[in-house]
Formats: sequence, C-alpha cells, structure tokens
Amino acid sequence: MFLETIRSEGLAHQSYLVGDDSAAVVIDPRRDCSVYLERVAAHGAAITQILETHRNEDYLVGSPELARRTGAVVRHGAAMDFAYGSPARHGDRIRIGTLEIEVLETPGHTNESLSFVLHDPALSDRPYAVFTGDALFAGSVGRVDLADGDRSENAARLFDSIHERLLPLGDGTVVFPAHGAGSVCGPSISDLPFTTIGFERDANPYLQLDREGFIARKAGELTYRPPYFEQMERLNRAGPPAPPDVRTLRPLAPAELAGMQVVDIRSPTGYGAGHVPGSFSIWRDGLPLFMGWVLDYKRPIALVDDFNLDLSSVEAHFVRLGYDNLAGYLGGGFTSWLRAARPVGQVATWAVQDLRERLGDVLVLDVRDGNNRGEQGAIPGSMHIYAGELSSRIAEVPVDRPIVTHCDIGYKGSLAASLLAARGVRCVANLIGGFAAWKAAGYPVAEGA
Amino acid sequence: MFLETIRSEGLAHQSYLVGDDSAAVVIDPRRDCSVYLERVAAHGAAITQILETHRNEDYLVGSPELARRTGAVVRHGAAMDFAYGSPARHGDRIRIGTLEIEVLETPGHTNESLSFVLHDPALSDRPYAVFTGDALFAGSVGRVDLADGDRSENAARLFDSIHERLLPLGDGTVVFPAHGAGSVCGPSISDLPFTTIGFERDANPYLQLDREGFIARKAGELTYRPPYFEQMERLNRAGPPAPPDVRTLRPLAPAELAGMQVVDIRSPTGYGAGHVPGSFSIWRDGLPLFMGWVLDYKRPIALVDDFNLDLSSVEAHFVRLGYDNLAGYLGGGFTSWLRAARPVGQVATWAVQDLRERLGDVLVLDVRDGNNRGEQGAIPGSMHIYAGELSSRIAEVPVDRPIVTHCDIGYKGSLAASLLAARGVRCVANLIGGFAAWKAAGYPVAEGA
Amino acid sequence: MFLETIRSEGLAHQSYLVGDDSAAVVIDPRRDCSVYLERVAAHGAAITQILETHRNEDYLVGSPELARRTGAVVRHGAAMDFAYGSPARHGDRIRIGTLEIEVLETPGHTNESLSFVLHDPALSDRPYAVFTGDALFAGSVGRVDLADGDRSENAARLFDSIHERLLPLGDGTVVFPAHGAGSVCGPSISDLPFTTIGFERDANPYLQLDREGFIARKAGELTYRPPYFEQMERLNRAGPPAPPDVRTLRPLAPAELAGMQVVDIRSPTGYGAGHVPGSFSIWRDGLPLFMGWVLDYKRPIALVDDFNLDLSSVEAHFVRLGYDNLAGYLGGGFTSWLRAARPVGQVATWAVQDLRERLGDVLVLDVRDGNNRGEQGAIPGSMHIYAGELSSRIAEVPVDRPIVTHCDIGYKGSLAASLLAARGVRCVANLIGGFAAWKAAGYPVAEGA
Amino acid sequence: MFLETIRSEGLAHQSYLVGDDSAAVVIDPRRDCSVYLERVAAHGAAITQILETHRNEDYLVGSPELARRTGAVVRHGAAMDFAYGSPARHGDRIRIGTLEIEVLETPGHTNESLSFVLHDPALSDRPYAVFTGDALFAGSVGRVDLADGDRSENAARLFDSIHERLLPLGDGTVVFPAHGAGSVCGPSISDLPFTTIGFERDANPYLQLDREGFIARKAGELTYRPPYFEQMERLNRAGPPAPPDVRTLRPLAPAELAGMQVVDIRSPTGYGAGHVPGSFSIWRDGLPLFMGWVLDYKRPIALVDDFNLDLSSVEAHFVRLGYDNLAGYLGGGFTSWLRAARPVGQVATWAVQDLRERLGDVLVLDVRDGNNRGEQGAIPGSMHIYAGELSSRIAEVPVDRPIVTHCDIGYKGSLAASLLAARGVRCVANLIGGFAAWKAAGYPVAEGA
Repeated sequence: MFLETIRSEGLAHQSYLVGDDSAAVVIDPRRDCSVYLERVAAHGAAITQILETHRNEDYLVGSPELARRTGAVVRHGAAMDFAYGSPARHGDRIRIGTLEIEVLETPGHTNESLSFVLHDPALSDRPYAVFTGDALFAGSVGRVDLADGDRSENAARLFDSIHERLLPLGDGTVVFPAHGAGSVCGPSISDLPFTTIGFERDANPYLQLDREGFIARKAGELTYRPPYFEQMERLNRAGPPAPPDVRTLRPLAPAELAGMQVVDIRSPTGYGAGHVPGSFSIWRDGLPLFMGWVLDYKRPIALVDDFNLDLSSVEAHFVRLGYDNLAGYLGGGFTSWLRAARPVGQVATWAVQDLRERLGDVLVLDVRDGNNRGEQGAIPGSMHIYAGELSSRIAEVPVDRPIVTHCDIGYKGSLAASLLAARGVRCVANLIGGFAAWKAAGYPVAEGA
Repeated sequence: MFLETIRSEGLAHQSYLVGDDSAAVVIDPRRDCSVYLERVAAHGAAITQILETHRNEDYLVGSPELARRTGAVVRHGAAMDFAYGSPARHGDRIRIGTLEIEVLETPGHTNESLSFVLHDPALSDRPYAVFTGDALFAGSVGRVDLADGDRSENAARLFDSIHERLLPLGDGTVVFPAHGAGSVCGPSISDLPFTTIGFERDANPYLQLDREGFIARKAGELTYRPPYFEQMERLNRAGPPAPPDVRTLRPLAPAELAGMQVVDIRSPTGYGAGHVPGSFSIWRDGLPLFMGWVLDYKRPIALVDDFNLDLSSVEAHFVRLGYDNLAGYLGGGFTSWLRAARPVGQVATWAVQDLRERLGDVLVLDVRDGNNRGEQGAIPGSMHIYAGELSSRIAEVPVDRPIVTHCDIGYKGSLAASLLAARGVRCVANLIGGFAAWKAAGYPVAEGA
Repeated sequence: MFLETIRSEGLAHQSYLVGDDSAAVVIDPRRDCSVYLERVAAHGAAITQILETHRNEDYLVGSPELARRTGAVVRHGAAMDFAYGSPARHGDRIRIGTLEIEVLETPGHTNESLSFVLHDPALSDRPYAVFTGDALFAGSVGRVDLADGDRSENAARLFDSIHERLLPLGDGTVVFPAHGAGSVCGPSISDLPFTTIGFERDANPYLQLDREGFIARKAGELTYRPPYFEQMERLNRAGPPAPPDVRTLRPLAPAELAGMQVVDIRSPTGYGAGHVPGSFSIWRDGLPLFMGWVLDYKRPIALVDDFNLDLSSVEAHFVRLGYDNLAGYLGGGFTSWLRAARPVGQVATWAVQDLRERLGDVLVLDVRDGNNRGEQGAIPGSMHIYAGELSSRIAEVPVDRPIVTHCDIGYKGSLAASLLAARGVRCVANLIGGFAAWKAAGYPVAEGA
Repeated sequence: MFLETIRSEGLAHQSYLVGDDSAAVVIDPRRDCSVYLERVAAHGAAITQILETHRNEDYLVGSPELARRTGAVVRHGAAMDFAYGSPARHGDRIRIGTLEIEVLETPGHTNESLSFVLHDPALSDRPYAVFTGDALFAGSVGRVDLADGDRSENAARLFDSIHERLLPLGDGTVVFPAHGAGSVCGPSISDLPFTTIGFERDANPYLQLDREGFIARKAGELTYRPPYFEQMERLNRAGPPAPPDVRTLRPLAPAELAGMQVVDIRSPTGYGAGHVPGSFSIWRDGLPLFMGWVLDYKRPIALVDDFNLDLSSVEAHFVRLGYDNLAGYLGGGFTSWLRAARPVGQVATWAVQDLRERLGDVLVLDVRDGNNRGEQGAIPGSMHIYAGELSSRIAEVPVDRPIVTHCDIGYKGSLAASLLAARGVRCVANLIGGFAAWKAAGYPVAEGA
C-alpha cells in the first residue's frame, strides 16, 4: 500500500492518493491535478477511482479534469445533485486493486458528506484508516453554517455522524481529514499531520461535549463566509472548467496595470514604504485565504512582488480558487514602478511602541478574526471589523481621526490599511507586530467583547 | 541579452531562446514547448516572436502551440505555403526588445530555408551571431535530398547561400545551427556546442570545396529517409496538433500488449536474454532515430523497460515525432511478463570472439549506416542493409544459414535481430560490441564497398 | 508539529524528523544525513536532539556526524556501552520545543532497545505516537537472534516490552517503527506507511499469541545474518566515521577493473547475455540487501551498468553499509567493455517452459529465503541454499550436472549464478521469472521442506 | 566535446568545464565546487586538470578543494608564487582527453595572468576558443590597478597581451572571459554570454584605441577596491581552506542577534519601514558586491529576511567570499523581531516627487559608482561618496540637515542609509527609484563632476 497526503498550503487542504501496485484512488483532488498523475506514475499504478467527501466551498475540485485525464470514475454523496460523476451510498464497497474503500454517509458539514473507510483485507478485517472530509478534524470538527438548513439541525447531524459512524470504527483507526491547521473549514484545527479515532476521542474538545452541548457550541460559533464561496459551490456542483494554462502569465509594463486588480504580495513593511496606489496588500501565504474576499472574477489581476520571483507556487493559488482572470505580474517587480517615476502610495507602519504613545489620538481598528479577539483580548478602545469583511463594511469606519489597523502580527492589518487607502482614507497606519507584539511588550489589554 | 540553447537529445535538435529583459524570440521550437515558457519566465521576459528556419522533416515544430500560449507571431520562409504564421523575407528586420533579427534567405536544404542574423545595436553594427538552421552545421552542411527538385540544383543553391550570404557575415560571427552531432540532417556533424564563421571557414570540410566539388559531393551523398519524414513534412506545413497530455500514460498488464506495437527500450543484452515475442528492440537513446523507421501512427504503442522507470524523458521522444498513439508501458517492467509465465523470446548475443570462430558458417548482416561501412571497412563476407531500411528490405535476407546481425556497437544490430525474429527467423544472433569490438580485437577487415 | 518519515529504500529503514517551529529531533538518523538538515531548514527549526532506538546491525547510523554538524545531543539505551552520546533511561522526558519525548526501555530485539513516546502537551496528556524501533513493526516484531544471550530469553523480554510498555499506550497511539516492508529485521513486515497500537493489537499475527506461543515462534524462526552485520555492530558502538565524499566516484577504464570487486547492477537478462567475467550480479534495488553478503571492505569496488547512469542513489547504498571502498563505475557502461573486445562472460537465462522440459537433466538450485520456500513450496527435486549464504556454502553444490538457479522472480537467482560462474562452474543457467513464473504456469510444486 | 559555463551571480564570475567522454578541465573553479563534480559526472568524464587564469581578488578559488576531491593537477601562472599547484608557462600544451589546451602568458591585469587556448585536433589545427581570464571581456578589458606596479605599465602589458597574443588567434576564435556583465573586474562589461575575437575587434571600445590611448584610458580609470580583496588575494595564494559545511546554518532567536553583524537582505522598502536597529541593508542580489565592503571576518553574521526563505543560494555568496563566520538567520524572519516587541529601526523612503518638493532643504548624498555619476549626470547640489566607500568616509557627511541618500535605483541608497542610521544619524531617507526615477520624471539634472 502507498498512501500520500497532498497538501495545498494556505487552504490547508489535504487530498490523498492511496493505492497498491496496480490501482489507486484520489480523495478530494484539487484542480491543479498533475501532482496525482506524477505521484501515481512513481508507484507504477493507475488512478481508477476519484472520491469526493463533499461538495467543497473553499476551493475548486479537480475531479472532472482528473477523470478526463485518467478515465477514472468520480463518486460523491447521493444527497446532492452533481452535473458529473455518480453517487456513492452508505455501505458501498469500492475496490482499489487489493484494497477496499467502504462508504459512510456522515452528514452535518453538508448534507451529502461522506467518509471513506480504508481496508486492507490481506491484513485484517478491521479498518486501517478513515478519510473524514470535513466531518472530523484533528482537534476540531467541520462548520455547520454552510449546509442548507438550520445550524442546530446540521450540528445534530454532525454529532450523530461522528458518534454513530466514525467513533465506532475503533480507537486504532487512523483519521485523515480534508483540512489541517489554518483552514477556515473548522475552528482551531490542530497541526497534527493526521490523527486517530482514539486520540481524538480523548483530545478533541468537541468530542468531550454531549449532544446538547455540541449543538449549542456549533450553532453559536462565529464563522466567516468569503464571497467567493458561492462561486466554488456553484462550480463544484456543475464541474469546474479545465484549469487554464497558467504558464501564459506574462510580465506586465507599469502602464498595463491601469484598470487591473493589483495584488501586492510583498511583506507589510515593503508595502507600507511604497506601493502601486490602489493595490491590495495580501502577503504571499495569505493569498488563498484573502484573495476571495476582495477580488472579482472579471477584471484582470496583476501581481506585484519585489523582483521577478518565481511565480509558480503563487499561480496555483489562483487556479485553485478559479481566478482564471490572473493576467500576469509587474515585470521587474516593484522597482519597475519606481523606475518609471509613477506615483507611489505609502501607508505608515507603526511599531507597538509608537501606538502606545499615541493611543488616545487615533482610531485603532482591529481586523483579526473575532474569535481571536474574544480569546486573547484587545487593545483598549479598539473597534473591530474582520479583515475579510472590511471591504463590504468599510462605510462603518469613522475617518475623523488617524486610523491604525492591527491584526495578530501585521499581515491582515496591511490588507485592511490597503483597503482603506484605496478608498481614499489618507491617514492610515498599520501596526507591524500586531497584537502579538502589543502583548509581548506588556501593554494593557482589554476584553475582546 | 540572454541566449539559451534547448537541445532535444537523439534528434540532436537545437532550438534557441534569445531575448532581453522584456521580449524574446524562439527559433525552431519543438512540439513539447513548455520549456520555452519556463525559461523565459526565469528571465522575466515574454516571447513575442517565433521563427522557423525551414519546414522541418525530422520532428514536429511547436510553433502553433507556442503561439497559442504566448500570442507570439510565427514566421517562416516565403517560398513555401504554410497553413499558419506569416512569411519572412530576405532583408526583413525583426525587433526583439532592444535586439534585432535580420532575415537571410538561404535556400538549398529546402527552398524556403532562412537564416536569422542576431544584432545587438547597442553594442555594434556588426552581427553577433547567426542561426543557420540546416544550411550550415559545425563541420558539415545540410542534406539536399529532401527539398523538391534536383539534388545538384539544391546543392548549388546551398553553396551559394553559404558563400554569398553566410560567410560574408564575417569570421567573428557566432554560428548556431539547428542540429548538433548525431543528427540525420547532415553527415558527420561535429560535437561543438556552437561554432563561428571563421572556424568553419577553416575547419569545415565542405567549405574547402569549390562550387563544382561541393555540388558533386552533395549530389552523390548516401542519405536515408525514414518513412515518418512524410508525416512530419505534411504536419509541419499544416501546423501540428497540440501535444497530447502525455501524463495519461499508464501501466499496462501483460495481456493488454496483444495487438500493440511493443517497443523494448532495454539494452541489447537485456533484450537478447528474454523479451516479449514480436517486440522491437530500440534502446532508450535510439528511440528518436529509429522509432520512425518501424512504428506506424495507428496501432497503440507499448514500452517495455526493466522496471517501472521514470518515463518522462522517453515520452517526449514520441511527442516530438507525433506518435500520439503511445499507450503506456508494461507495468512492473519485463519482470511482469515473466511472472505471468508468458512465452519468452530470445535472440542470441555473440561476442566477437564467438563470431571469429564461426565466421564461415553464418550470414553476417551488417546494418550500419552505409557511410560508416564505407569509411571503416567491413567484416569479411558480410552483407549490408541499413538497420532503418531492414523492415522494408527484409525479403532480401537469405534465411538458409544462421544470421548474425552487427552494427557499430550492438544497438542497431539488436533492432535488426528483433525485426528478423519478429518475421519468424529463428537462428538469429546479435554481435554485441559490433564492428568496434571486431576492430579492437584485431580481426581481419574487408573493404566496405 | 511537523513529522516526516525519511525512508532508505532496500534497507526499508525509516528514520524520523519531528519538531515544532524552533526545535527538532531525529530518530535513528542514517549515515548520509544531509537530508535531515535540508528538511529541518525547510521548517525553520534546528535539530537539538538525536535519539537512537537501538544499536543497529544492518546499516551505519549518522548520529555522530549529524551531532557534529548540528551540535545536537545524541542519546541511546543505557544497557550498552557506546563510545559517543549519552544514555537515556526509562521514564526520561526530553523536550523538543513545545513537544515532549518520553523514553521507554523496550528490550528484546537488543538489550538496550528504547521506544520513544511523542507527546504534544498543548493538545492532550495522552501520547500521540510512539517510535518503536525494532520492537514492534506493522504486522511483525523484531528479530531476537541478534542480541547477546538466549533467543528464548530475548523473545520473552520482547513480549513483555510489547505487552507491558507499548500496548498500554492505548489503541489510538500511532506507531512509527524503524523498518517497513522488505527489511531483514523482522519477518513479513506489512507495507503500511505506519500503524497504530489498536490496528496491531487486532491485525499483527504476533500479538495474537500468548507469551509461550510468542517465545516458541520467535525462538524457532529461521533468520539470516549477513557477514557485514558484524562491521555495523562494531562501528555503531564506536561511532561510524564521517561519510566519504561520494562525489569523487569516477569512471573507470576496462583495464582498471582488474583486481577490483565488480558489481553488475543490470537486470538478470542483461547480465546473462554478457558480463565482465567474475562480476557479481546484484540488481540495483537489491544492493542494500545483498552486497553485504559478498563484498569485502578492502578491495576497491567497481559498478557496471548499461550506461553512464546517474549513480547518486546507488552511491548512498554503499555509504549506508560503510563500503567506503567504492571506487567508481565502468565508464560508458558495459558497452565499453565490449568495445574494448574484452572477454565476455555469459550465463544462460531459462524461461520456466525451458526448465519444465529438461527438469530431470539438471540440478535446480533454489536460492530463495527458506521461509518463502517453506510457505510456497518448491520445484520438485530442487536443492536449497539461500542466495546470501551461497558464497560460504558453495562447496556443497554438486557440479556434475548443469545447474539452474532460481529464486522468487529471477534476481537472487542471477546473483547465485554469478557466484557459481565466478567459481568456474561452466554450465549455469538462471531461471528468469523464478518460482512465481513456475507457479503461474501451473507446473507441479513439491513441499518446500 | 562538452563545454559548460558555470556562472556565479553577483560576482558575474564565469568558470568553465570542458572535456570529452573521458577527461575534463575546470578553469577558475569557485570555492563551492560540488557543481563541477555533478556536471562532470553527467558527462561520464573525470576532472584531470584545474587551471587558473590568474590569482583572483574578488572571490576564493576552489582549486585546492577540487584537487583534493578529484586528484586533478592545479596549474597557474609562473610569475607568482603559490603555496599549491604548479606553474604553467607560455607555450605549454596540456592534454584533456582528445582535446588540447595551449597556455598563453597574457599579463596586465596581474603579472602572472594566463589565457588558455582550446584546440580540438580532430577538427582543425586552428584554435576553437580561448579562455581569457580578466584580460579580455565582452566589451571591456581587465582592471590594471590590482597588480603590483605602475598602472601605466600594467596597461601597456595588457595592451600587448591582447594585441600580440589574443587578437592573433583569429577572428573566428570564441572568447570565454572570467567575468560577465556586472563584475567589478572590468568597467561596463557587456551582457553577451560569450564573444569572439572578431566581434571584440570591431565592437570593444578598448580595442579601438591605440597603445597610447589605451594606456591613458586604463591608467586614469576610476576603480574601487573593497577591503575584502586583501583577504582574497592572500588566501588565493596560500590556498583557501575547505568550504565550511554551510548546512549547519541555523535559525537564531531575536536575542541571539546581539553582538552579531546583522545583514538585512530584504528590499529597500521592507528595510525602510522597519528593521533590526544597526543592521546593514544589502539586498539579496547585492550581497556578493557589497558584503565585502562592510563585514568583518570575525564577528558572527546573521541574516534577516521576510520569512524563513530558502537560504541555499544566499549561503553560497558567503562561502565564495570566505565569510565562514556566517552564523545563521533570524528564525521566522523579521516578523519574529516584531513579535518579540523589540525596538524597530526605520528609515524614511522618499519617492522622487517627495525629493523634488524639498530639494533645497536636505542634503542629497549620491552613493552611485562615480563612473555612473559622471556619465549620467547628477541631482543638482548632491554630494558624492560611493556606497562601498561610505563606511570608511562617513565622517565626511555633514549631519546638520536631513539626509536623502540616492543611487541608481534605490538599493545601494538603502545600504548607505543603513550605514548612516547605524552611526546614529536620525534624519535619513532613501530615495526609492533613485536617479533612474529622477530622470524618468524629467527633473533637472546637473553635471556629475
């Protein structure tokens, strides 16, 4: 048996390739799916099955494309209509060479959610592992606000799926979830590479709750829903189009950026000291999590980095979220903009020492995830709007005082500052080091209500 | 300026990527053209021009595909009709950023052959380099048997192109030909990475001849023309189809090989001691030069190697020659065939010592290039048919005695032995070490008439 | 937490790199230890601890070298004297950044064997995983014949270690053993990438036995002990020397092979049809398992392949087993030998159909692992000597008849044939396809007593 | 023949690997010399000769280390004493397999400078190429201020070497110099990948001068000599020590940076908006050219980047200049510094529009190469000190007004600003976009006397 986890950074998405020396299955393939073909070739096997744990919301699946390239069969939950593939039902057993996959219906995160139990009949009758999709994570469980219907009902369904279908697989069963730490698909997922039923039964805070407590907690949870989710949901049912040939990205001259959506992927300090006016500040690793809050699917997108850096990994983020309108990057990096003597935008960067001194004079705008603010406390007097939601709630921000944006470390704060600057707010600063530095400096912390 | 040579091994094809920090040109792109996109991205430039020195015969060009991916313009000689691109004419000057390409019409190899002179006006008025296509090689010149019309006329045209258009560029001009050592597009090309007008004027044997001598030599030259050339010529005028997604190659079970064209890419010794009956023996590096002699474009092709080796480089050979009917490879390597207890073909392998002892008893079939036979001499009493031509001339081979095939070292001999074995000839041996070993052993050598 | 498995193919050795964003531990590093430095750098952490589960017998550890390069501390079991590092004792807790390793003494395979329990205190009090060394494998347990003392006593100790120390960690604990499928350190290890206490409790045949049954089975098990183990044991206690700069390997001319130990890494068919007389036939993937049976540590070693293939992966096998006397490879591959008209050795290769016909006329020498012979049966009338042991027992083989060697598929059979040929036995053939093909052909099978 | 150019970016150093299928020579190997071993292995040859064109000043040679690893012979000019290798003299002919290298003494840049003429006797008696070291570059010639003795005498010697020894090789001879565009070893080297005698005879401005004119120009040329040259010269005569195992670099905690030489390799904007107080700003690609001006060989060096980026290429720059005191990098990037709430340094970044408005109020400090200032003109009223020399001439800078540093684009300006800030100058800004932006904006330009 070979079993490989293919991780998509940022999304913290985990897909899996499992097989023996003849056949293989891919579970939840991503849209840039060449990786599965390369890996399976290394094992000398052929992909014969593609399984989806659920209709994903946060990225485009690669199932139709991978099926086209391999001739493999696609299967997903029967409780939703898909324009491609065929339904798998509770109790179905699917052969992958000498291995066997048993289908469990585990609704809750979505109605049609499935889990896939991996058996190696040559070794034992007991299951070796289970691919739990967004039902059960290391240290967490899936969101219940994305499925149709009432959150409490979804939470109840999820509780039952976990307790009646997953936990009975036995403590020794390995758990491979669809997401790892950092995903927006579940709160506070831990950073274990994988987990076990037994470890989760003891260590997962959600599994310490009874049904009522579980439902209450899940129903009341603060979650965010970026606007691009709608696009993903629609396309993942219809079948995403084949990925574009991203290699056609080309260097753009400064003049070509006019009218484009410009995304600056440099650090907050780099952005602060000089940038293309109107550009969004989204640091490289933050692209998958934040581009979907601010970019539209129409106007061409241009990237700005310091140099002509290798964009290969960055491109994939756009492919995965369906931004096929990525046009290229500023040739020669930000320096080209400067060389051309184009107007330069600036956003002040403040250290926590600076903010401490002038705390009363400015509006402090906290753009962290509200959960973090609640757990860790807040800078006294700060206003809160989550960075992702800021572009749609920007009218709520008073502009009668200088504004200092802040987040956990300084990245989302830079995005927020860029959104404010793009709207014409002139006196904006970003707190580099963010709340982490504020706390490390021992400065006063208020309730993060 | 950046200038990169992209070599396709086996074909000894050399394409070129030249540009500055904004724009780039590709000269004679191959069909698997991602390499140009990757390389140009590393330089932060964009491909704006694609130039073809001539309508190629030995591989499929990537011009239409590369144009589709980049938006670049394709240009080729005006003396032939192409279904894509637009004509370039003698004296045209094409700008590539700050660089300049001057077009020279240099017919002879084909009627519409062009050379491209590279100028960097910022440095000098004199040319820096010239891309000579198949007109002038290091130590050789192009074939004149492939163009329409009389060989002598073509040779005369080629002589004039070289002497009136290329040599006048000046000794200091760097020469970048379309082929290097090992190509079938010119005899005995030397293995210099590139050359200069001055070095060739002194060292190239063809440039030591006067017009008459040149024409006589070129018109009388022994050349071979594999049947696949016709397909290349037709498609290169029409515009080759986009390359297939070669990653879909899959492992095949022994039973699936029935009815396929099976190509065994192992060494002659490996093939000799056991092989799939009916398979062709073409060693890995010999694929580009010999598959076009024996494979058709219809029936699926299966490869056999020792193991599940990485096929990535091998696949490219098939793409370049348009064999989109490559189906896959024997999963698990030749061992799988054995495990399945399938019948095993064998071809004896003889060392030169063995042949020496039994020289009178056997038919020695020399399958070398006739030019080599002529220059180096022959094993006494041997019959000659070039390996490439053997499949169409196989009826000429008498089968009343055991046959020992031989070539230079033993690879083409194995191909020949495999062709004979496939036709049912039972007593076939291949001379490993070939003529090189025969000579090294000090055995008698006859005229290679 | 990051957790990576670094596998050494052939040896099926598994070492581990575990850490958080500051510190990391390596468990059982191999001698070519740059991989740990590269991987830990990718995580931005520093290696602060090196732990050995036991004094290894089958490869050289990289602990002293890795310690030299990182400044990390080396720890091993207290029940053996080592010339480097310091002892770890039952119950010790070692901090790796925010993680914690708990030491368990789990003797049996060797007296000083340790297991390391991995805790992430931020997540739970219960253990997440355990690194079991050679105590517990997926589907198997360690050998008990390598430790000092009585096999039964060692088996009893191993039983107690597993039942009293490992199983109590709980079903949900992940198990990371020091070896995977194919290792000689335990019989029939399954090919799971890792396992769990719970899965093993149900599926591991050894864990279904009571104490007495376990001891009886382990004490009676047929095992092999290659002569190089002694060198490994000695050096692993003393601390292996720094690995040589393997990049100094160079191409050798045919004449330079005189007096060297020549290892032919081509396939059995390639070897059969022609080889350097006196060379050992050990296929590429078989090197780690078989070179230690036939090579000495004194005379220079030369490799022969078909071509000048990339030797980078092959070199590592020699480094890991301490064969610092590897000198290089035959430049130009076996073809160079032929070109030079050197004498060529040959060993016949028989398909099973050939053997079936002449079964009574020949001595069939079965060189499989005796366990396989016992389980799967034998070719009627065959004699058995394990391939590894053949060079020391070669005098037992009668040479009055032609000999056909066979193994499972044909690789070890080729090694055996090469050993016989090197001793001057003239009539030797190797059965390609081996017992697998024999069985697939439906030919008669006798008891493999 | 194979011939590869190995480039060291930044230094614009070009070394060469040339050989046939058995033997190879390396010309001017760099200290991190594994690349030659990897490349020569790909060609299946062995390095038998190492040739040095001259005693280098700007980087450490790898000759002794490469000789140690290969057993090859090292040769350099006879006119200087070296502690390793042996002398090569004018007219010596050195065999490299079937190739031949002819030694030319071409003094001028240094007294013992050699050029190496490459012949392939199988092709021609005329030379194919010449490796000119620092005598002749594409578009330039070597410096004459580094050799002992009078500049004019050195210039005369260089003129004679070029005119009497190099040009007579013939226009068609390929020229491979030791440096490309960007090197400090010759002024305004052009960016051709290589050149020819003929092209240079026409296009090289220095070759258009007569002897007197040449001497006058070379003797009067403004050149810079970084302090680390002395270390290079000394060690290159003595034989540089083996390169350190750079993989031992480790992440450093913020507190560990105390007392270290901190080099910030981020962009000028990133540095400007926040940095470790006292750190030097040297952008990634500027490291090889500027670290030698400001770093000492004693105190440990720490790097700061945005993230935990892959440092593999950066490390090599330090190895090449002998900075074996590189200790590591700030773990987690500059963000770690912020998280720890450490004090943050800032340097203002001005766009040219900002400077234009306040031109009279500030001291504009031009830190460009004086040659550039001379050729392109200057910002009116600006003071000039070359960035490299600033640390030794810092006392010359008046601090009674705010200072705006500027260079060509903004990188060296950031280094200058960092040097001023480190000396306690508070009102410092760096002009991003530099003189290029100033000119592009159409602002007034004064004579750059």
